[in-house]
Amino acid sequence: MSRLLMLQSCLLPSQALLLTDPLNIRYLTGFTGSSSYLLLTASQAALITDYRYIEQAQQQCRPSQQGGKQPALALICRDRASESLGACIRRLLLSASQAPQQLALEYHHLTMALYQELGRDLPALQLTEWQQPVEQRRAVKDATELSAIRRAVAIAEQALAETLLQVRIGMTEQALAGVLEQKLFALGAEALAFPTILLSGPRSALPHGKPTERRLQRGDFLLLDFGAVVDGYRSDITRTYLLGSATEEQRAFYQTVYRAQQAALAQMRPGLTADALNQAAAEVLAASPFAAYAGEGIGHGVGLALHEYPLMRRGCEAVLAPGMVVTVEPGLYQPGFGGVRIEDDVLITEHGIEILTQAPKELSILCAG
Amino acid sequence: MSRLLMLQSCLLPSQALLLTDPLNIRYLTGFTGSSSYLLLTASQAALITDYRYIEQAQQQCRPSQQGGKQPALALICRDRASESLGACIRRLLLSASQAPQQLALEYHHLTMALYQELGRDLPALQLTEWQQPVEQRRAVKDATELSAIRRAVAIAEQALAETLLQVRIGMTEQALAGVLEQKLFALGAEALAFPTILLSGPRSALPHGKPTERRLQRGDFLLLDFGAVVDGYRSDITRTYLLGSATEEQRAFYQTVYRAQQAALAQMRPGLTADALNQAAAEVLAASPFAAYAGEGIGHGVGLALHEYPLMRRGCEAVLAPGMVVTVEPGLYQPGFGGVRIEDDVLITEHGIEILTQAPKELSILCAG
Repeated sequence: MSRLLMLQSCLLPSQALLLTDPLNIRYLTGFTGSSSYLLLTASQAALITDYRYIEQAQQQCRPSQQGGKQPALALICRDRASESLGACIRRLLLSASQAPQQLALEYHHLTMALYQELGRDLPALQLTEWQQPVEQRRAVKDATELSAIRRAVAIAEQALAETLLQVRIGMTEQALAGVLEQKLFALGAEALAFPTILLSGPRSALPHGKPTERRLQRGDFLLLDFGAVVDGYRSDITRTYLLGSATEEQRAFYQTVYRAQQAALAQMRPGLTADALNQAAAEVLAASPFAAYAGEGIGHGVGLALHEYPLMRRGCEAVLAPGMVVTVEPGLYQPGFGGVRIEDDVLITEHGIEILTQAPKELSILCAG
Repeated sequence: MSRLLMLQSCLLPSQALLLTDPLNIRYLTGFTGSSSYLLLTASQAALITDYRYIEQAQQQCRPSQQGGKQPALALICRDRASESLGACIRRLLLSASQAPQQLALEYHHLTMALYQELGRDLPALQLTEWQQPVEQRRAVKDATELSAIRRAVAIAEQALAETLLQVRIGMTEQALAGVLEQKLFALGAEALAFPTILLSGPRSALPHGKPTERRLQRGDFLLLDFGAVVDGYRSDITRTYLLGSATEEQRAFYQTVYRAQQAALAQMRPGLTADALNQAAAEVLAASPFAAYAGEGIGHGVGLALHEYPLMRRGCEAVLAPGMVVTVEPGLYQPGFGGVRIEDDVLITEHGIEILTQAPKELSILCAG
């Protein structure tokens, strides 16, 4: 059964559902454009778009492309200047066999402005929150999705291996990031998974910093956090290296993160909560001399979005399930000294895990003469 | 006076304002991270962030970097697992000399989920919509912003000129887009303004399509819509060419768009409404044999965002003002035949306009043997 039919089967006859998140719409229909809306009832499905995307929708949403029992997806080309979204929804629902009384909405994506506009334009409908987020369905990947993620991982790891050979003392962070990004594209990435984080020396303590004109120095930490996109699906990997030499403190700092990540990976299996996974790594960090510098959280789902359900940190009750792909990325960040993060993409299997990212992560001192 | 102080001066003592849009926060504070919030009262300003961004905030929000009378911006590192955003706001407002009764919010950015959470966690505050959107302030660019946009335009035009020399029949759209994007980066773009739209033949009729493995053919339309980012500011330019030859119908089609764009540019001046600007081009398209294929809208503001205020189409009452930078981009899109769009970035001056994008736009047949 198609993803769309499975979702429609959750709708009561009294309910309509309006999806606004472009990634959820892509997941359900194959349509990759933006500024569009997916309106569902138990028996109807309509993609509401406009002249900019209508031909693209016709190409991407052909029933043959979805395979199996794809319901007829009506493609609506709305003239935005003469018809509000609410008016368009009203028109479409009029043709429903049983007129819905409720319109369920994605509160995590819908803006207050659009909520108010819909309230004004659809006075006969009760607006409610959709309680079965598509994000939770997206967390478990099928074979096609996994294949795209595997390719995105392979491209990232090949680009990393080639880039490490070109690291030289005196290069700027930006220049090295440029080398890495060029290789990602040359190897077949359709886009970067996110703007590359490539940081050296004390700047590695910025968990989400951007590369600058700073030049690599002997004794620096060098942190690379990056990924590729294949067919819309992302990889996300972090490795941290030492340049030319390492002090005892740097070694201890690195090994603490390494041990924290190993502790988390050792616990990982279907049925484990995100909170427990986080705690496995947090305990190692907390018991170290560097406890004050521990980053929070342990990782996140990765797929069509870089950060997607489950977002795993302390108190998160999400449960790992077979088919999920999540990152595991503990880190230490000491201002003025530096930061270390080690991040893998991990597939939850029926009985354990498969670590998709296989680049070496033992402490490594790059000869960058 | 700093941008932050100007905004604070609009607040009543009874009001607090919570900004959630990262681009508005960047515009006001210089902070370029995400997942952060700017809380303002008439006398206080606080950036609420977390461990991932706190050091970046310390570097980017130093008073010295803002120049002039920058108010003290408090940097708050919130532990997201133990303190909700609402609880953090409550704590910060307690120290206000006069406790606000209202919290104004950016309804065009705020999600319903966060709105509801804030309502639960801040029962003593009335949540309201902020009626003086920062987006409207951002529409008028200062000298620093203009300088970044000019550089982003120069990079885009140089990359275009170099890329046109490498167009060959038989190349794929993706390969040519790769050439263009590599040149953008090599010339100093910090990012692409958006994923490059590079379309050939009938595919040029997709207003927002993506490059594919389709190979360029003699007689094709070739449409390139792309831009560069410099210091966060974007350029956005479209040119359409003929490959090797042009039929009479293709020439007439192209000339119609060209004349529509000229008609709009001829009208452009401070005081003109977006609706009138749109109409100037729409009339030319409507009077042509190709009226049925006219795209809607005439353009949009461009700056930190690719599409920002004013979004100019039929019925839009926004008024052009000196300092605004907007695109002018009429287009015709005939399914199965092809599309033509011509897009310039235009600065509104005190008495007229300056067209920032200067690449030739007369009908041009590329010799692409």
